Formats: sequence, structure tokens, C-alpha cells
Amino acid sequence: MRNILLEIQYDGTEFNGWQVQPKGRTVEGEITKVLKKLTNEDIKLIASGRTDSKVHAKGQVANFKTSSNIPIDRFSLALNSNLSDDIIIKSAKEVSLDFNSRYDAVNKIYSYYIYNDKIPNCFLRNYAYLVKDTKIDITKLNEAKKILEGEHDFRAFMSSGSSVENTVRKIYYIDISKDNDIIKVEIKGNGFLYNMVRIIVGTLIDYNKGKISLEEIKEAIKTGNRSLLGHTAPGNGLYLYKVNY
Amino acid sequence: MRNILLEIQYDGTEFNGWQVQPKGRTVEGEITKVLKKLTNEDIKLIASGRTDSKVHAKGQVANFKTSSNIPIDRFSLALNSNLSDDIIIKSAKEVSLDFNSRYDAVNKIYSYYIYNDKIPNCFLRNYAYLVKDTKIDITKLNEAKKILEGEHDFRAFMSSGSSVENTVRKIYYIDISKDNDIIKVEIKGNGFLYNMVRIIVGTLIDYNKGKISLEEIKEAIKTGNRSLLGHTAPGNGLYLYKVNY
Repeated sequence: MRNILLEIQYDGTEFNGWQVQPKGRTVEGEITKVLKKLTNEDIKLIASGRTDSKVHAKGQVANFKTSSNIPIDRFSLALNSNLSDDIIIKSAKEVSLDFNSRYDAVNKIYSYYIYNDKIPNCFLRNYAYLVKDTKIDITKLNEAKKILEGEHDFRAFMSSGSSVENTVRKIYYIDISKDNDIIKVEIKGNGFLYNMVRIIVGTLIDYNKGKISLEEIKEAIKTGNRSLLGHTAPGNGLYLYKVNY
Repeated sequence: MRNILLEIQYDGTEFNGWQVQPKGRTVEGEITKVLKKLTNEDIKLIASGRTDSKVHAKGQVANFKTSSNIPIDRFSLALNSNLSDDIIIKSAKEVSLDFNSRYDAVNKIYSYYIYNDKIPNCFLRNYAYLVKDTKIDITKLNEAKKILEGEHDFRAFMSSGSSVENTVRKIYYIDISKDNDIIKVEIKGNGFLYNMVRIIVGTLIDYNKGKISLEEIKEAIKTGNRSLLGHTAPGNGLYLYKVNY
């Protein structure tokens, strides 16, 4: 038995997220279908975590066990030549049998792109969140992000539908940069709750808009009250950038 | 009668080019359909020039005559809210009745993007030409581009299917820049023959690969022999960037 680790890039636009669903095209579904074809085995892929519909990945990581004797340097080539061009296997390597992409992840980096202009940009329609009704001032975003960095109970920053019990997470940094009309929010944390990055981004934007105050954000962390925070920013601006082990 | 000038951005991926075709979705077709709905007139759009299937535009320009009394500042809004999100009307303004987007164009700027890596990038699959079998050295591209700058008879740089008679064009500059694995070729000229930019880019790349020599490029300009030049680079890397009047 071998344990194979894949580094995966995907454009989430045409996917109903990572995880196999009863309906709709998923990244996991596409990859396992090709693995079945290559190995003739029913492969169970273990990803570092799921991503939602429209969410992209530049560095998703997943591993699987196989009895196949396909040489490791053929795996990427064979997968890529069978996958559609919105999924790319960047690398494949053999790891020890006890390695688990989900449980062994030490921290993750997500990036979130915002396009801030009055007129949409058709090239970014699937790749950034269009904010056109307000001028984003990154000094304002930086004021709000300081409250979030560090270790906190982030249960207010979690969409319903998650059954996780421990909601304490540590954010190492939230780095905000601007290049013309594109604002990038990069967040590194030891783990993320369901929709946490998207609620953080929506909260930064709603603070910029004056819809919520710094006090309300602090209060939300204290009380876990989701309704004190901003909206959930859409999936199309979100990228799973890197998983560190 | 009024003459309305539109500045248009489009993602060419899902279009069978600019010009209305018997089959397939076209940019001209989509815009005239919406103009018909807004004005109840059969509008004739005059563009600065056509673009082929998959080719993008950041600054296409087109004008049309109409008897409609829709206020000019409503035109963009009304068009954008009726068009699909891969076409954006960036601006609309009223111009003199004798203005013609095609004949009054003084010069145009095209940009062409190449992604040069061994592994594809799924986010650029529709937006840049993937060159993975050779390492592109921009000093080599710069050697070849010098032959092309200036005024020449570019008939060798023209795909068949064009009935143009005067094939002399002036290239003001070919500017080549590199940002990590992305190479951008920007070309400004007083006019371009059919597929001229794509043949120029294919020729620069084939010179880099050692498939053709500088002497062959010079000879092609002298003789008009297309077969001395490189391949025609694909449409997905090409952008009509700006039309100057």
C-alpha cells in the first residue's frame, strides 16, 4: 500500500465545491473518477479541508492510499491529461502511510480578492468580489483587522451548518494590500471555521462602509453573536492559497 | 439622429468573435440584441475592428446611430443591466454624426499574454498562451522584435482570408515585459492585418526556440513569404487594449 500526496490547483467557478455531492460537478468527484480509471480502485481522497462552491484553490492538498504501482512521477502527468483544464495537479509525491492531509495540517493561508470600482471588470467576474458602492480605504480595513489577529473564540465568525465544538482559532496575521482597484486580504491561521474568512472579509468591508463599529466586532468575539458582524463575502473571491505541514 | 460611442470590455472565451455569424454567440450580436430591446431599432454597430474567437478586449470601441432619446448617461447602465457579465460597457458618449469607429481610428494597441511554465495555470487557461516546452528568454524576443518595429510591408504577417490591398503598416513599438512566469507583449501600430499580432508573437516564440532565424524574418518582410515565419499564436492570449482617435 502507498500513500500519495497531491498538490492541487483549481478554478472553482464551474464546481459545486470540493466535496462529492449527490448533484453537481465537484473537484473531489472529478479527481476520484480519474483515479478510478488509472488504478481501477475506489480511491478515498483526504483533503486538507473542503472548499465551497465557486471557491478557488492555488494550493489544496489531498492524499490517498493505493495499491497501484504507477511510478510517482507519472501520477501528475496521467491525472492532468485526464482531468479537465480547470483542475491542475501541481505535484504528486509519496508520503509515509500515517500522513493525513486533514489532521496533519499545521496552518493554512487563504487569500481573498476584492475588485473595488464603480464599473465591473469582466475578467475578474469569477475571481474577485466586486464592491462598487463604496470606496474601500485600506487604513479602515487595517483598523478592524487588528481586533481579529491573535487567538480568539471565533464562533461568531462561523456559518450555521458546522458541528465543530472547539471554536478557538489563532490568526497569525491578516495582511491587506492594494494594487490599483484590487485589494487582497491574506489570512494565515492555525485553522478556520466554516465561512470564517468570508465573514471576516464581509466584516472588514461593512466596517469600512460604517455599517458596524469596532465595538460591535469586539462584542461579537466576546459574545459569539453573529448578527453583530458584517455580511458573508461571496465565494468567488476566495482562494485556498497554501497548507503548511 | 444621434451617434453614440461605446467603450467596451469583453472576455472573449465564450464568444465566436466580435462579428455576427450565422452560428454562435458573438459580441456584436449580443450588444445589438440589447440595443434593439432598448431602442426598438435595428442598430448597426460599427467597431474599430473585428476580433476573432476567444480574443479579448479591454478597450474595444464601437459607435451606432439612433433616433432614441435615452439620456446618454443611462445608456451604459441600461446596456450593462441587460448584457451577460462577460461584456461590460465601460462608457457611452455622444459624438458628432460623421464619426466612424473604424475609419477614424489613428492607431491601436494590442497586448498579448504568454504563460511560460512547465505546469499549466488553471486561472490563465483562457487568458494567456501556455508555452511549456521551452524557457522563454526575453532578450531573444527583443532581438527579433527590432526587425519588426517601424514601417514595413507586413503581408507575410497576414492569414489568408483577408482582402486588404495595402499591407504596409507602421509598428510604433513592441514592448516586452516579464512578471514571474507571465510575459506580456504590447504592440502599438497604425493598423494591423488579419492575425498580424498573433503571427508576430508566434514568430518571436519560434525564434526563441531556434526554429527560425533573424535572417528568415528579414527575408519574410522582403518577400512576403508567410512560411518563413513562426506559428500563429492562439487567440486566448490576445487583448485589444486601446484604440486611439
